[in-house]
Amino acid sequence: METNKYTAGVLQYIPFFYVIWSDDLLSYSEVSVVKKAIEEDKTLEKEDYTYLLKYLDKKTPPPYAVLKHWKKVISNSGIKLVESDIYPLATFSQKMICHHYAACPFNSHLKDIEINLGIQPNHYKHLFEIEIVKEATSNFYNPAEIDTILKGDQATVIDAFRAFLKDPNFKWDIKRDKEAFRLHVLKQVQLLAKEGYGAMSYDTPYGGTNNMVGYAAIFENMMYVDGSMAIKFGVQFGLFGGSIQKLGTKKHHDAYLLETGKTNILGCFAMTETGHGSNVRGVKTTATYHKETDSIIIHTPGENDNKEYIGNALHSTMASVFAQLIVDGKNHGVHAILVKIRDEKHNLMPGVTIKDNGYKLGLNGVDNGKIWFHQVRVPRENLLNKYGDISSDGTYHSEIENPNKRFFTMLGTLVGGRICVARAGLGGAKKSLAIAVKHALKRRQFNDSIKIQEDLLMDYPSHQLRLTPAIASCYVYDVALTHIMKEYSDPKIIDKRKIETQVAGLKSMITWFANDTIQECREACGGKGYLLENQIADLKGDVDIFTTFEGDNHVLLQLAAKGVLSDFKSEFNSAGFTAVLKLLGERIGDKFSIVNATYTNNVDKDHLFSSKFHKHAFDYRTRRLTYTVAMRIRDYVKKGVPSYQAFLKVQTHLLALGKAYSVELAYNTYVDFTNSIEDKKNRLLFKKLGTLYALHELRKDASWYLEQGYITGTKSKAMRQRVERLSTELRPHIGVLVDGFGIPAHCMEAPIAN
Amino acid sequence: METNKYTAGVLQYIPFFYVIWSDDLLSYSEVSVVKKAIEEDKTLEKEDYTYLLKYLDKKTPPPYAVLKHWKKVISNSGIKLVESDIYPLATFSQKMICHHYAACPFNSHLKDIEINLGIQPNHYKHLFEIEIVKEATSNFYNPAEIDTILKGDQATVIDAFRAFLKDPNFKWDIKRDKEAFRLHVLKQVQLLAKEGYGAMSYDTPYGGTNNMVGYAAIFENMMYVDGSMAIKFGVQFGLFGGSIQKLGTKKHHDAYLLETGKTNILGCFAMTETGHGSNVRGVKTTATYHKETDSIIIHTPGENDNKEYIGNALHSTMASVFAQLIVDGKNHGVHAILVKIRDEKHNLMPGVTIKDNGYKLGLNGVDNGKIWFHQVRVPRENLLNKYGDISSDGTYHSEIENPNKRFFTMLGTLVGGRICVARAGLGGAKKSLAIAVKHALKRRQFNDSIKIQEDLLMDYPSHQLRLTPAIASCYVYDVALTHIMKEYSDPKIIDKRKIETQVAGLKSMITWFANDTIQECREACGGKGYLLENQIADLKGDVDIFTTFEGDNHVLLQLAAKGVLSDFKSEFNSAGFTAVLKLLGERIGDKFSIVNATYTNNVDKDHLFSSKFHKHAFDYRTRRLTYTVAMRIRDYVKKGVPSYQAFLKVQTHLLALGKAYSVELAYNTYVDFTNSIEDKKNRLLFKKLGTLYALHELRKDASWYLEQGYITGTKSKAMRQRVERLSTELRPHIGVLVDGFGIPAHCMEAPIAN
Repeated sequence: METNKYTAGVLQYIPFFYVIWSDDLLSYSEVSVVKKAIEEDKTLEKEDYTYLLKYLDKKTPPPYAVLKHWKKVISNSGIKLVESDIYPLATFSQKMICHHYAACPFNSHLKDIEINLGIQPNHYKHLFEIEIVKEATSNFYNPAEIDTILKGDQATVIDAFRAFLKDPNFKWDIKRDKEAFRLHVLKQVQLLAKEGYGAMSYDTPYGGTNNMVGYAAIFENMMYVDGSMAIKFGVQFGLFGGSIQKLGTKKHHDAYLLETGKTNILGCFAMTETGHGSNVRGVKTTATYHKETDSIIIHTPGENDNKEYIGNALHSTMASVFAQLIVDGKNHGVHAILVKIRDEKHNLMPGVTIKDNGYKLGLNGVDNGKIWFHQVRVPRENLLNKYGDISSDGTYHSEIENPNKRFFTMLGTLVGGRICVARAGLGGAKKSLAIAVKHALKRRQFNDSIKIQEDLLMDYPSHQLRLTPAIASCYVYDVALTHIMKEYSDPKIIDKRKIETQVAGLKSMITWFANDTIQECREACGGKGYLLENQIADLKGDVDIFTTFEGDNHVLLQLAAKGVLSDFKSEFNSAGFTAVLKLLGERIGDKFSIVNATYTNNVDKDHLFSSKFHKHAFDYRTRRLTYTVAMRIRDYVKKGVPSYQAFLKVQTHLLALGKAYSVELAYNTYVDFTNSIEDKKNRLLFKKLGTLYALHELRKDASWYLEQGYITGTKSKAMRQRVERLSTELRPHIGVLVDGFGIPAHCMEAPIAN
Repeated sequence: METNKYTAGVLQYIPFFYVIWSDDLLSYSEVSVVKKAIEEDKTLEKEDYTYLLKYLDKKTPPPYAVLKHWKKVISNSGIKLVESDIYPLATFSQKMICHHYAACPFNSHLKDIEINLGIQPNHYKHLFEIEIVKEATSNFYNPAEIDTILKGDQATVIDAFRAFLKDPNFKWDIKRDKEAFRLHVLKQVQLLAKEGYGAMSYDTPYGGTNNMVGYAAIFENMMYVDGSMAIKFGVQFGLFGGSIQKLGTKKHHDAYLLETGKTNILGCFAMTETGHGSNVRGVKTTATYHKETDSIIIHTPGENDNKEYIGNALHSTMASVFAQLIVDGKNHGVHAILVKIRDEKHNLMPGVTIKDNGYKLGLNGVDNGKIWFHQVRVPRENLLNKYGDISSDGTYHSEIENPNKRFFTMLGTLVGGRICVARAGLGGAKKSLAIAVKHALKRRQFNDSIKIQEDLLMDYPSHQLRLTPAIASCYVYDVALTHIMKEYSDPKIIDKRKIETQVAGLKSMITWFANDTIQECREACGGKGYLLENQIADLKGDVDIFTTFEGDNHVLLQLAAKGVLSDFKSEFNSAGFTAVLKLLGERIGDKFSIVNATYTNNVDKDHLFSSKFHKHAFDYRTRRLTYTVAMRIRDYVKKGVPSYQAFLKVQTHLLALGKAYSVELAYNTYVDFTNSIEDKKNRLLFKKLGTLYALHELRKDASWYLEQGYITGTKSKAMRQRVERLSTELRPHIGVLVDGFGIPAHCMEAPIAN
């Protein structure tokens, strides 16, 4: 019953129907979108309705003959499809009727279908035998607007910093010799200090603006220049300066902080020891108070008890040394003491030995070294005494009675550094994505041997799937990190323990994400990505260690999990445990019951795209893992297994919990943020990125959700398809999405990105 | 009804019962193991049976009070548990009765339980409050025997080669300057040539032993010295020499092959072009036959048509250039032509331009360069004419009529290189695992604050899970690669197309595996792994590009998938497609029906550990993916979507198929191999490694199996637990397992591994 001549009413829908049926776009909710549009279309005649509605039933798809006829009609029209049109398919349809009929108004119902089904050029450009006017990337969104949303209230600081990076001293170059590289980086750090960036997070009297949020933001931007520069900067101002600022008192601030911010004093942060790695509480270096001389003696007792991997060790004149403080024969636990390690002529002080750590996989512009102390004497005043002090009468006292609590309070000063490391990792991921996307928007590879031109790499579905979820994740993590830094630096929030747990988790997830992403970008750029000149290689080498330093990710994730388990109580013991367990049991009870068959099998687009679903799924996972790991630990403890060993036995379970918790945290923060975006167009884009992140993360753990019966196989498949589809839908905007990171042009020097 | 005094019969079982119940070791099949042992134990009295069997019901576990009492009895015995005993727990039990009773014969029924349940020190050492005599690694297995099994019939060649690597020229050192590094590597390659290793795979008249299998084995061993050395070696003898050997005829062999094997001629393999990457068929360089002068003119037409990333480009005097051969105005497709690129004084020949590619992420000892040809004239004889020739009368002829088939036949010469790249990746993975394991057997971290000593890293369950499945995978891939190289170099197998498909898949899977493994090892060694001196960093940089060169993994996996789809027919068209589809449908039909409820939910140890289950699961996945992707393609094609575009639309599906196929192939090859191991003890060890590999791989894709309903959530969880358990069970042997790789001590110079 097909005619060769369609009415104008039907004709305009033909391209849509062809795309929908050829690309298997239809799900039940989508049928209703199209149906509704047609039913509301008052321009249609009765016969038009009949014809169109006939082909909207999934159970009776149009026969192949009909499809082929539709295709012929479309191809014969000779009309070009312009990808950069706001509604390319609706506009194309309109042009088709104009071609055949006198009246051809733009039909907004078509536009609605195009928007609601999310039909993108990738869905049809291989279907039609028509000329397609392509652009590598659409200009529908404005990268400057996106960048502004991400920058938030730090826009002025960030813009000024990015402009400052134009200075030729920040121009990237290949540096193979570590000595020359280190001197270059030192010069860069001094330049940053001169401009006031070093002291930024300190109080005004010490040259700063007390802006930790801005500090973290510029720290990320430093990665666009060089990882070594960022890390040496972080060691000097964040770790060394930060230890004085946060563990010291006014006398230390006055004596050292202003000069540290100016790099007039170069310092290092001597915490980690060769033999003890992540176990900071177990460091062996001693700081013994000597009453007779009113001084503290710093000493490295054993062969493997030296300070290890200390950044800035070769350039520094001072060190903030973490050691067991022994007063009157009693060990009061780990404290930090300022130790002069070099004199004015840069010679080592008596008793101090420093050795170069040598070449590393990356960050060769950072001078890491090992430090040994042999009975090195410093004045009592050098004890950074905010949380524990020795009085002039030689007695130890601290406002924090519990040595455990005191230790963790001091370690809390590392939390800011962990946020910065995650930000730096994120910066590395962003830059490598920007390079890979720009390359993929130029690079052509293979074709169908009909076309003259090979296809753009970015047009391959597998390429879209490799890069797009990672881009979405960058947006989510950016927002999450900005938020957590605001909370961390908010003086109104006194108790930071919960934030510490959260940072431990986020740092792990984001630095792993950064490494995976950079690796994917390297491979996505093929051999070109392997050349140093294209800058991904350096990022890969530099960011690699981010998973280890400032807290090994495995250790931190367990810390996060224990935080969750103990309901954010920093101490965990079997006495408090049962109470926590009871609480968890109560909370989790009602959550389990929600999961019913309609829910587990719901593959509706609206449902799959709703943040309500994502939040529920993330929440369910965190709670369920918390509950089950707690039960396992309880059972072990009941059987007489010591608590330490019980935790060891559930270690992989704890890691899963730490991950689940962190993903949930990042997503929830992001959703709150997107709701606050005023401009609707950008808000919807941000929401779409959040949806892609959530579905991608849920899919990564699909086996767990399937095991729990939280989703069915059908739903799991539908989620996978949605991840692929969203990646394709975002294809036209992918160039804009990486431009939205705001990486300055003067930091994008990679030849393949230009 | 617990007494303080047990009979000797009961007492000896107490440690077992305590371990079993405390560590939740019991599954149904395991209950039967214990039951059977007890029932067959004729030394027991009737009351003993009654007591023991009472505590063998999963539904009525012993109350906590009983467990605690058992523990007390064990602890009070004051007996040491010696981990290095062959049957530590059975021996411990025996000692316990000796302590209380006069007669205490060794009870072999206990031994049986210990073996059959796979109880390992990790299961109990945290449970008992007894002294445990530990050793970092057990000597139950002999690494030399394991190594011998892996070496197979190449043992003599491999042993001689490993001994040769003691030469001080192969001592590892940090090399930062590419010029010096390249000269050093050149010297190493010349040294290898002098010893006859370069020509190894050539025929005897050309200095070789025609031993491609041995060649691949020593190639892997080269990675223990340096990646750059391996790759430059491969370029000179495998790619350049290989192109002469395989694409040339006797005149070329006589003129060049002997000299190439001796490095008297240095050559490069000029295939890839900047603008065309993986699309070799689309190279733009032309080789135009000029009848008047009987010569061929090599020319680079456009800016981006230069040869790119050509290894050995700066040291070579000749190049094997892949170009479109044009004879009498007709393009006959890609052919290889020998071109002299430098004269005796190492000056470039007229018309040849070569530029250094510069520094790379790794392999900086390999001199990669770009090459342009401007109307470079070479004699007609320089055409490597095995598959296509120009006669003296100036006409083109080939025995292979179909240009497509001709092209793929020529490309087939790359297959040997792909196996070698996979082997090299495997070598990198092995060495990094050996370093990481040796480090983890020394390095201590944290403790329960009761013990003096911190725990060994290797005793952490998460650490076991990070490294052990990777070690098992090395064994599987080693066997798979040896096997495929044997097939590839077997002159009895004429049609190598199936092997090409298989190699495409294996190369992708193994090089990705190698990268993931090296990264995991880097992180597992913490900051130490980041130092160049510890050698993981270099491996990481070198192996990275293996996923890209000799065929990009994404491209190769699609090639593998297409091979599977077309039932190993190298051509694929819609005509042949329906027939293939029908065939697949028939084959797959009976496979689907096997899956029933008992099967999908079977969590029995015997079932989960049986290669029958693994094989079925792998086979099911490959067939199911083949079937569904074929159906999708058919639907697209029916709707008029051109075949090229249809393949594009199912790209991610094809990648999944390529992976599934390769894993199945590797596993099946491995199982056949293990069945052939004569010595039972080692055979069982190899089988256990295969089981760990299979379960680990199946778990990685658990979401897919769950979606298909092939396994239930319960079975999926059981599989995860088995992976963790196997990793723990292999813990005592982990040092031996990495020693079994046979990496010579003189190549294990990393300080953390010593």
